Amino acid sequence: MKQQSKGISQARSRSSGTEARHATGDDRSRSSQAAKTLLQQWAEAVEGYFGQLPARYPAAPPRLVEAVQYSLMAGGKRLRPALVLECWHACQRANSIHDRAPTHSPAGINPGATPKGAPLAAAAAMELIHTFSLVHDDLPAMDDDDLRRGRPTNHKVFGEAMAILAGDAMVTMAFELICTDAEPALAATLVRELASATGPAGMIGGQVLDIDEVKRPENLEELQTLHRMKTGALLTASCRMGAVAASATPHQLASLDRYGRHLGLAFQIVDDLLDQTATPEQMGKATGKDAAKGKMTYPMLLGLEEARRQAGQQLASALNSLDGFGVEADGLRAMAHFVVERNV
Amino acid sequence: MKQQSKGISQARSRSSGTEARHATGDDRSRSSQAAKTLLQQWAEAVEGYFGQLPARYPAAPPRLVEAVQYSLMAGGKRLRPALVLECWHACQRANSIHDRAPTHSPAGINPGATPKGAPLAAAAAMELIHTFSLVHDDLPAMDDDDLRRGRPTNHKVFGEAMAILAGDAMVTMAFELICTDAEPALAATLVRELASATGPAGMIGGQVLDIDEVKRPENLEELQTLHRMKTGALLTASCRMGAVAASATPHQLASLDRYGRHLGLAFQIVDDLLDQTATPEQMGKATGKDAAKGKMTYPMLLGLEEARRQAGQQLASALNSLDGFGVEADGLRAMAHFVVERNV
Repeated sequence: MKQQSKGISQARSRSSGTEARHATGDDRSRSSQAAKTLLQQWAEAVEGYFGQLPARYPAAPPRLVEAVQYSLMAGGKRLRPALVLECWHACQRANSIHDRAPTHSPAGINPGATPKGAPLAAAAAMELIHTFSLVHDDLPAMDDDDLRRGRPTNHKVFGEAMAILAGDAMVTMAFELICTDAEPALAATLVRELASATGPAGMIGGQVLDIDEVKRPENLEELQTLHRMKTGALLTASCRMGAVAASATPHQLASLDRYGRHLGLAFQIVDDLLDQTATPEQMGKATGKDAAKGKMTYPMLLGLEEARRQAGQQLASALNSLDGFGVEADGLRAMAHFVVERNV
Repeated sequence: MKQQSKGISQARSRSSGTEARHATGDDRSRSSQAAKTLLQQWAEAVEGYFGQLPARYPAAPPRLVEAVQYSLMAGGKRLRPALVLECWHACQRANSIHDRAPTHSPAGINPGATPKGAPLAAAAAMELIHTFSLVHDDLPAMDDDDLRRGRPTNHKVFGEAMAILAGDAMVTMAFELICTDAEPALAATLVRELASATGPAGMIGGQVLDIDEVKRPENLEELQTLHRMKTGALLTASCRMGAVAASATPHQLASLDRYGRHLGLAFQIVDDLLDQTATPEQMGKATGKDAAKGKMTYPMLLGLEEARRQAGQQLASALNSLDGFGVEADGLRAMAHFVVERNV
């Protein structure tokens, strides 16, 4: 664990704000590596929290707890909780006089940064919502997927009824955990952010647009509307929740909101590119399904080259949004690079 | 509407606390009638709120809003939101010096009792959660029902994928609306109550026990555990949320919690009795399905007579729980009678 923290500290200091903003090829790959280390650290924090969930529900049927844990602990990039925690961390450091003054580890994780309480619950709640959406999305009535993160999907293991109920349970757990772990006024704000990003005008609304076989998106604007809801809303809410948990200033909240929006679009363009170019083994799930289903994707609409160019443009805009932050946002800069340069 | 309020006022004053506690056959039927009038009044308030929901989600796909509204506006007894609002109303009146003093309408609805803000949002959120559970429960992978409240089930009209997503959307809307309409500290408490009653140790946990075909409840204790979770948790939470929204004293909260628990068991016993003895036309849904599926029910375990006696016993305990309240809980007394004496 100590080793891990040291790794992060080095990872953070390898990529300074200026470097990330005017990145060369080498800088980009270092930045991406730094992001992977950060993702791993935050993933460990969130997985530690998930590990303690069964003890918080002693009265729940064991098979339900098992089904929930099966999907929660299946790995994955943990990008959303990492965004919550990295935004929280950046705002916390930006607003702490002690941290802004030059110290021996200007870009390292300070010892007080171990998340607990509101930010950790917010991060875990976000991953619960994301995981619920995957479990329901994989159902036979929806995308009918057999494989997720390299393992059989939830309903393949526990049956369809249990997968529906396990997904439902994850949603309620997300909101309950926030209200149990955060102080009430903050909890209400976090619940509103998360519920609004998940609901009819957010992720679920986006999924409804996505399964509509009659009215497919036909141009860039319609495709972006779909993805702003389906994947963008949760990614943006991750950033907002982290900021809110750190009592960010309105300006910081607006900056991270903008960062989240651009990151969300970049994420989806790259997702579409990977769906077209990556192998199922690489992705841990079936690929090429969008095209097979006649779904519109960015590369289909724009071509591979232009799609890649637009992903880069969204990355640049995401980085620009962080201009008001100093080194404390280097982690977020690295994560933006990672989102565009990843191959999973 | 004025006519309606007068009806309620008369309904309330027809059944005084003493009458309800030592009820004869005639009193019981009057009490049941009073409850029906109350249920109708609170249903109107909640349905008015539901009617405005589409305007609150202008960015949501119209077809999703339609699917949500289809099930939300399908009628039903609206027992849970009525419990929220009647408990809120009882505590509010009990704690108001003005209302405790003898007035011209000791048991009537006072003009200030029109619910808005937190209690109305809590009532609507409770019905959203209840409705979501019905929509998912009816799915082919679950109970596979074609008929609900006398109309085709959600997935029969909108398809399975949309029914799953509409149910999911209702859950998030429930929590979002509480946090939008109630002040933050109260909202966090209400969300925790609702999420905990809905989640793995509440309703969803109970549904998991209910679909377990390997381990069926074999005795009264196991059957009660199942139903305390599957239906009892939400009924109890309805009472608790109403009390919390009215800033109830700890004693009042404990009384209404007890009332809710007994009411919940009475409700389920009567539900089992009706499933065995009522016609599908009467119920607006298929009947006799529990027995056909080999599910354990109270009448199967206890016989019809003993099941009826135990429902009466739970009613008596529910009424006893209200002893600390005066006339302001007459509506709750009437509703307890209704739950046991209903034929739908």
